[in-house]
Amino acid sequence: MEFLKAVTAKEALGMINTFPVYLHTEVIPLDDSLGRIVAEDIVAHENIPPFSKSLVDGFAIKVKDAQGAKETNPALLFYKGEIRIGEEAKAVLDEGSCIYISTGAMMPEGADGVVMQEYSRKMGDAVEITKTTHKGENICFIGEDIKIGSTVLAKGKRLTPFDLGVLSALGMADVWAYKKTKIALISSGDEIIPIDQQPTPGQIRDINRYTILNMLKRISSDVSFIGVARDNPEDINEHLIASRENDMILVSGGSSKGERDYITTSIEQLGGEILFHGINIKPGKPTIFASLWGKPVFGLPGHPVSCSMAFTRFVLPLVRRLQGESVEEEKRTTGILTTNIPSSYGIEEYVRVTVAYDEEGCKITPLFAKSSVISSLSRASGYIIVPEGREGFEQGEEVVAYYFE
Amino acid sequence: MEFLKAVTAKEALGMINTFPVYLHTEVIPLDDSLGRIVAEDIVAHENIPPFSKSLVDGFAIKVKDAQGAKETNPALLFYKGEIRIGEEAKAVLDEGSCIYISTGAMMPEGADGVVMQEYSRKMGDAVEITKTTHKGENICFIGEDIKIGSTVLAKGKRLTPFDLGVLSALGMADVWAYKKTKIALISSGDEIIPIDQQPTPGQIRDINRYTILNMLKRISSDVSFIGVARDNPEDINEHLIASRENDMILVSGGSSKGERDYITTSIEQLGGEILFHGINIKPGKPTIFASLWGKPVFGLPGHPVSCSMAFTRFVLPLVRRLQGESVEEEKRTTGILTTNIPSSYGIEEYVRVTVAYDEEGCKITPLFAKSSVISSLSRASGYIIVPEGREGFEQGEEVVAYYFE
Repeated sequence: MEFLKAVTAKEALGMINTFPVYLHTEVIPLDDSLGRIVAEDIVAHENIPPFSKSLVDGFAIKVKDAQGAKETNPALLFYKGEIRIGEEAKAVLDEGSCIYISTGAMMPEGADGVVMQEYSRKMGDAVEITKTTHKGENICFIGEDIKIGSTVLAKGKRLTPFDLGVLSALGMADVWAYKKTKIALISSGDEIIPIDQQPTPGQIRDINRYTILNMLKRISSDVSFIGVARDNPEDINEHLIASRENDMILVSGGSSKGERDYITTSIEQLGGEILFHGINIKPGKPTIFASLWGKPVFGLPGHPVSCSMAFTRFVLPLVRRLQGESVEEEKRTTGILTTNIPSSYGIEEYVRVTVAYDEEGCKITPLFAKSSVISSLSRASGYIIVPEGREGFEQGEEVVAYYFE
Repeated sequence: MEFLKAVTAKEALGMINTFPVYLHTEVIPLDDSLGRIVAEDIVAHENIPPFSKSLVDGFAIKVKDAQGAKETNPALLFYKGEIRIGEEAKAVLDEGSCIYISTGAMMPEGADGVVMQEYSRKMGDAVEITKTTHKGENICFIGEDIKIGSTVLAKGKRLTPFDLGVLSALGMADVWAYKKTKIALISSGDEIIPIDQQPTPGQIRDINRYTILNMLKRISSDVSFIGVARDNPEDINEHLIASRENDMILVSGGSSKGERDYITTSIEQLGGEILFHGINIKPGKPTIFASLWGKPVFGLPGHPVSCSMAFTRFVLPLVRRLQGESVEEEKRTTGILTTNIPSSYGIEEYVRVTVAYDEEGCKITPLFAKSSVISSLSRASGYIIVPEGREGFEQGEEVVAYYFE
């Protein structure tokens, strides 16, 4: 009794990555934009810094005036006043003179270097310079950070604190961003009860609601929990219909191919199409992908680990696409495997691991536990992928681990 | 003109890590607990799963009844009904019989294995089993995920989506968490203007406000922006006094040792003590650490990169301590350096890098740019640390990069 529409991991991602999506944008304040996806290439409309400025406290000079200067043979320059920070540098530096300048203050015309204060001695109207300065030393030139006309952020990038720094430098108090993806989350199963209830024998509390919902929160999705659907077509239909206004629907549980598998039936009854049912992966095999009302629907396995891994590998990429994210950077590490990992040929396997750094480098240790053991995910730093074409990895091999977000 | 109280990076962290902190806790709903720090060891008060359950759809059997069974020589067992999911398994399995069981349903007494449905053929009142099953196969035993009495989460851990899964499994709808750290953020400098203003020559927009505030948001701090203090003692005093009710005060800008360095003066005027002024690091040298009203105060350099790096290396660890975080996991990677990195002996240097994975492994490439160039941080994936005792790294060396949060 195999799945009718089982696919390989690669085929599954192929279908997921070509599912048609429609993107919507909105203008949001910079203050609310952390973790949101920018919806246009950000092109600088001005130079940053907008003027050449000093990187230190010291004296703006013409470097040729202090060539060869050292402690025992200082150069003597006329003190021509000071440039106040925040003000326009109106003075022009003449040959043989210097102007005091603070960190961040605007460079005066005619100066081509700044001597740090510790290499100077002020003596009345003159200043002794005790070190040779190179051309351009201690200056941040106009446009050196950001050149006018250059693209500073690419459309589709998730905004980090540093990106917000770039936008603030350019004075962009508002940002064009993609709208948050609206996602409906349904738990299913006759055994599932809300977490504040005491289970009777045979019942278990709803775990997937919390793991999936919070993984979605992490990537700034607008997720709504619809409820727990019982194992009957009417209840599942009702929950799917209640999810209709969302951009994506996720159902956890009820996706395996037993006698009570109502998810695929319900999707088809409502006019949807099952695109695949089953992926050659472990854990997470009984994953369903369907199109319903033009929207993507995932049926995720009920076992918490299977559910979370299928979510991480197959749902997350589509959530990212739905919110316009195209510049993705998965955090990974390479490391040495501390024990053998056996795996079956023909199946892509995801193995939870811990990652530990010591003086010798990075050690990656598998956590072997059944697909229902949520505590193993809580202890894991990430996972490694054993490709379809390999029968595992050996102790001492260098492998790549993917960190969980 | 050296800093009076300059220290090494190690000395600085020593002082920061011993600064006395007072922790406060509160009860919060599980729904709001993502990224918060748990304030007690979480000890399981029940077994998870609370009963042994099937991991597959199939038949619960006594494995000895199907020993040696295969496609050409099936074992024949009596069909003794079905255990409905979510219900107590009241039937007891007799020798020579089997009971249909769905994924997640409770195991009947007397059964010690589950045969997957695809290895069975139901024929009226009998079932043919076509595969040998091992003892315990396809069963998740009571307490196999979480054992009653075991510590599942350690006090001081930042809660991940998977941790929330563990807490939901245990039915913990509320969590004891440390209160969010209240942090006051002040920008300083006569040249600093709000981002929605057009700078006149010599002025620049406030970048550090956005980078620091959003790095703090990432780790669930309760951060308030107090305002931009002008470069005079009165205005700085006023801003510090307005920050008094917070657990920590951060001032960016005005920390270098020029003529207009009012931060240390203000702190001392208000009765505080400068613990260090200057760290032998690059960038970020003119960092100040002080105690004022028993609270930690950092003066951070004005250059955006210096400010962000000093924040990352020296402020973040204290923010984590102030919110009770003790189980820290920095995301890192090892990789091969693509170019030489020169560095000065005696200074701990932080070099922004990009991290790229290809088939050969991980390549780490430094981004060389001045300490004022915020766009270089926006392009960086992380940074590497060149220790005090080294004059840089060479192309081809394996180095460790720390990812930015």
